[in-house]
Amino acid sequence: MGKYCFGIDVGGTSIKCGLFQTDGILMEKWEIPTRKENNGEAILPDIAKTILDKIEERKLDKAEIDGVGIGVPGPVNDKGEVLCAVNLFWGFKAVTKELTELTGLPSMAGNDANVAALGEAWKGAAAGAKNVIMVTLGTGVGGGIILDGRIISGSHGAGGEIGHAAVQHDETEKCNCGNRGCLEQYASATGIVRVAKRAMEASDEESVLRGFSRLSAKNVLDAYKEGDKLAAKVMDEVGEKLGSALAVFACVVDPEAIVIGGGVSRAGQPLIDCIETHYKKYAFSACKETPIILAKLGNDAGIYGSARMVI
Amino acid sequence: MGKYCFGIDVGGTSIKCGLFQTDGILMEKWEIPTRKENNGEAILPDIAKTILDKIEERKLDKAEIDGVGIGVPGPVNDKGEVLCAVNLFWGFKAVTKELTELTGLPSMAGNDANVAALGEAWKGAAAGAKNVIMVTLGTGVGGGIILDGRIISGSHGAGGEIGHAAVQHDETEKCNCGNRGCLEQYASATGIVRVAKRAMEASDEESVLRGFSRLSAKNVLDAYKEGDKLAAKVMDEVGEKLGSALAVFACVVDPEAIVIGGGVSRAGQPLIDCIETHYKKYAFSACKETPIILAKLGNDAGIYGSARMVI
Repeated sequence: MGKYCFGIDVGGTSIKCGLFQTDGILMEKWEIPTRKENNGEAILPDIAKTILDKIEERKLDKAEIDGVGIGVPGPVNDKGEVLCAVNLFWGFKAVTKELTELTGLPSMAGNDANVAALGEAWKGAAAGAKNVIMVTLGTGVGGGIILDGRIISGSHGAGGEIGHAAVQHDETEKCNCGNRGCLEQYASATGIVRVAKRAMEASDEESVLRGFSRLSAKNVLDAYKEGDKLAAKVMDEVGEKLGSALAVFACVVDPEAIVIGGGVSRAGQPLIDCIETHYKKYAFSACKETPIILAKLGNDAGIYGSARMVI
Repeated sequence: MGKYCFGIDVGGTSIKCGLFQTDGILMEKWEIPTRKENNGEAILPDIAKTILDKIEERKLDKAEIDGVGIGVPGPVNDKGEVLCAVNLFWGFKAVTKELTELTGLPSMAGNDANVAALGEAWKGAAAGAKNVIMVTLGTGVGGGIILDGRIISGSHGAGGEIGHAAVQHDETEKCNCGNRGCLEQYASATGIVRVAKRAMEASDEESVLRGFSRLSAKNVLDAYKEGDKLAAKVMDEVGEKLGSALAVFACVVDPEAIVIGGGVSRAGQPLIDCIETHYKKYAFSACKETPIILAKLGNDAGIYGSARMVI
């Protein structure tokens, strides 16, 4: 094991970069813009340049660097290839091959949600746990499964794609993936708003939610915390969908901990509570006490997890 | 790697034993009775004796034997300990410790459904696949998850306990596990009969099923294959429950293949067809073409998988 490694997290607008000691200490983090023009052809060269610049700036010995880990928003196979990453305008890209050629360093690639899960299992909310399910509640619902300290990327790069678990068989609206009734349609930020709008249409019940011209998930969660009854019904439905789905996932892989992250998780413990109530109801006896906890690393989970991949 | 190993599968009435070459060739198989008196205290000594007898009979060199793998009907932790195995009248038992002391050979223990999955992934229906979900449809619904060629036993020995995935939230009857609406309540042999009885009560539709005084799952499946309309409705419901649950499991671990085994799977391809129709409807796009296949090793899956653990 060397002394240092790099963790990179590629997003649609910016690329987060971290220089780590291999014992897990984040020495420095910075960002560069994501240049998506010409099918994002500059993205990997930009990353290589910022890494090589950093090595020179810090006068690091390349022999002491374990490598570069990179998380990308798309499915990644076990050869480190991406078939398609819509948000980067990438089609097929041999990410690790190209990155290693550009930097002269070993590299590993993973899906961004998977990599964030690995970060939380390494140095975040579930630090020290070998088996973790992480759910990222953002615009969509992402997920990552860590077993025995390693990412389960799956046979088609779809390991941890738990946002597309079918949880409501009679749903009439389509999910972005083309199916109907995916977890993402209820538990993402957009999903929570959708559930709230349906609840408002279904009754005349008074609610502060009716006062917003452009309702957001944060509005719903704030109203819920302030005791709004309609918001409580909405969050009960969201908690039921998410808690019961987590109970099913738990009887597949039986994790030590379930970590909830992403923007929606900023609602904090009240969100966990409404998930946990339903989780405990549906979970298999041996898994009922599995802790459901808030993510800790926030936007840094990706660079931590990417770094962990190469150590 | 040595030349030989033993695979043992402990059932409630008999213990299946196999002597294997480590390349996977089954040299000989035999059975001994399961003696459950005095909390099943004779079970491990009986297994040790039959192994030592076989070594002597065949004049094998102990140094050439990789060890003994054993599958038991209960949760097994990663120290090879069983907390409780109801069908054997066992409470806590340090299975591998005791078996190694008794035989002088290394040993590994696993849950019987998990071990059967490993057997099918090694030399059975999914031979060569590294990532497999196996479902065993018998009196109950068992399961095993194999990732990267290894059993996922989980943090509480509940990995692969997919029979207790909550698939019907408004179920009124209790499952043996204490929850309501578990997959096992619909897709096991007893579950299929239960669904059939409910279907008969819910309508006056003519059906050959009404002619049986003690209806069995085989009766339902036979009637389905012969074109009975009520049996077709029953199997559509069973297929919907199982197919949609498998679609959820697939977006957690994204296997290369899904293997269906156990007594109910003797119904063959028509059973697979009614599962697959619903699986394809609910599966995430990347997983829609994952093959669903019939188990191949039958009652030998357990000894194959047990043997595989020690190689």
